[in-house]
Amino acid sequence: MSQEIFLYWGSGSTPCWRIQLVLEEKNLQYEQKLLSFEKQEHKSEEIMKLNSRGQLPTFKIGDLVINESIAACLYLEDNFKTQGTCLIPKESQPSILQRTFEALNLQKFCNENIVYYVWRTPIEKQDGSLLIQKKKDLNVELERWENYLAEQKTEFIASSQFSMADVIFFPQLAFCVRMGYPLESKCPKLFKYYETLRKRSSIEKSWPPHWKNTQNSTMLSDC
Amino acid sequence: MSQEIFLYWGSGSTPCWRIQLVLEEKNLQYEQKLLSFEKQEHKSEEIMKLNSRGQLPTFKIGDLVINESIAACLYLEDNFKTQGTCLIPKESQPSILQRTFEALNLQKFCNENIVYYVWRTPIEKQDGSLLIQKKKDLNVELERWENYLAEQKTEFIASSQFSMADVIFFPQLAFCVRMGYPLESKCPKLFKYYETLRKRSSIEKSWPPHWKNTQNSTMLSDC
Repeated sequence: MSQEIFLYWGSGSTPCWRIQLVLEEKNLQYEQKLLSFEKQEHKSEEIMKLNSRGQLPTFKIGDLVINESIAACLYLEDNFKTQGTCLIPKESQPSILQRTFEALNLQKFCNENIVYYVWRTPIEKQDGSLLIQKKKDLNVELERWENYLAEQKTEFIASSQFSMADVIFFPQLAFCVRMGYPLESKCPKLFKYYETLRKRSSIEKSWPPHWKNTQNSTMLSDC
Repeated sequence: MSQEIFLYWGSGSTPCWRIQLVLEEKNLQYEQKLLSFEKQEHKSEEIMKLNSRGQLPTFKIGDLVINESIAACLYLEDNFKTQGTCLIPKESQPSILQRTFEALNLQKFCNENIVYYVWRTPIEKQDGSLLIQKKKDLNVELERWENYLAEQKTEFIASSQFSMADVIFFPQLAFCVRMGYPLESKCPKLFKYYETLRKRSSIEKSWPPHWKNTQNSTMLSDC
């Protein structure tokens, strides 16, 4: 298979990062264009003609457009199964699939419940007691994953090897840290996982560029 | 492969319905237990020991527990590929994967934005202008799918055959109708799709039992 691969992405977007990780793990050559959410470049004509939702990632492989990030990841895994890292090996398929989709809960508890709420709600309209409850929910969710690592006794989130579950889970965990979550003190096993994986080549190469030279948020620091 | 399959489910839950559809399409024998959300049976000890989130579906195949509905559907498809309906045929794989995950937007715009908000917010605390906006967003989302059917000129939502995309999309569309969405007048192509598919054997067999003898809601009737 030799097809041109093109990824439009935004820095810090976990769905974009998922596709980057699969491309890197599979050693695939690809063209990419980093767009700015702030400048609304994801709503540009260039994007809209490939992705009528005006969202990033926007992803092309040959003549195919697959913009849904998990769809793109599963497509790449299935079509480049034996190239680079096999991300859903048959022997661990059930636990990898389970954790891959279960990881979307972290997106809900962190991004949708808290981060987007804070970003989109004027501070005088924010419900403080609701936010406290949402932060408790996030603690419960992360504690659950902390326990998974303890019970499984594996280095990675679903099995003894880096898998599709890490592709989905790691960027979301890193986003929690970026938003100020005190991972080291609250979830030592997850923190060790985070520290180990951030040095992994695919992750280092695709680390959100604007995270490198700006400070983390403090939004979740009181969790 | 001969393994005991067991599904715990709740009537009207679209994630449960997805797994039922795959089991029916694959002609798989399975045991099932219908639990009541109202009676909190999804938080019972029987469930909690298989599913620490206390959620339905709770799904067992042999010794494996795969509770995330899409994970279970993908697992069944991959392990029973040639049995019954092939739900992700290779030739349509990209469009099926894209639409499968894109369909989760409908869940967001209908369930999370509107239905759960109304169910969980005391009527005096509901924000009327916000609800009007959310209903507009739902209209835009459904119009998008109406256009997909028009552009693709296919009977099904992602290809010329019933696929995994229909497994995810149809129950969600049926839930919109159940909640009172005026599908016939607003989205004639989607209505035709709905009317055709509701007679499909797998869908008829798994139709939520409590929907058969109770009236639809009117929550979305003014969309």
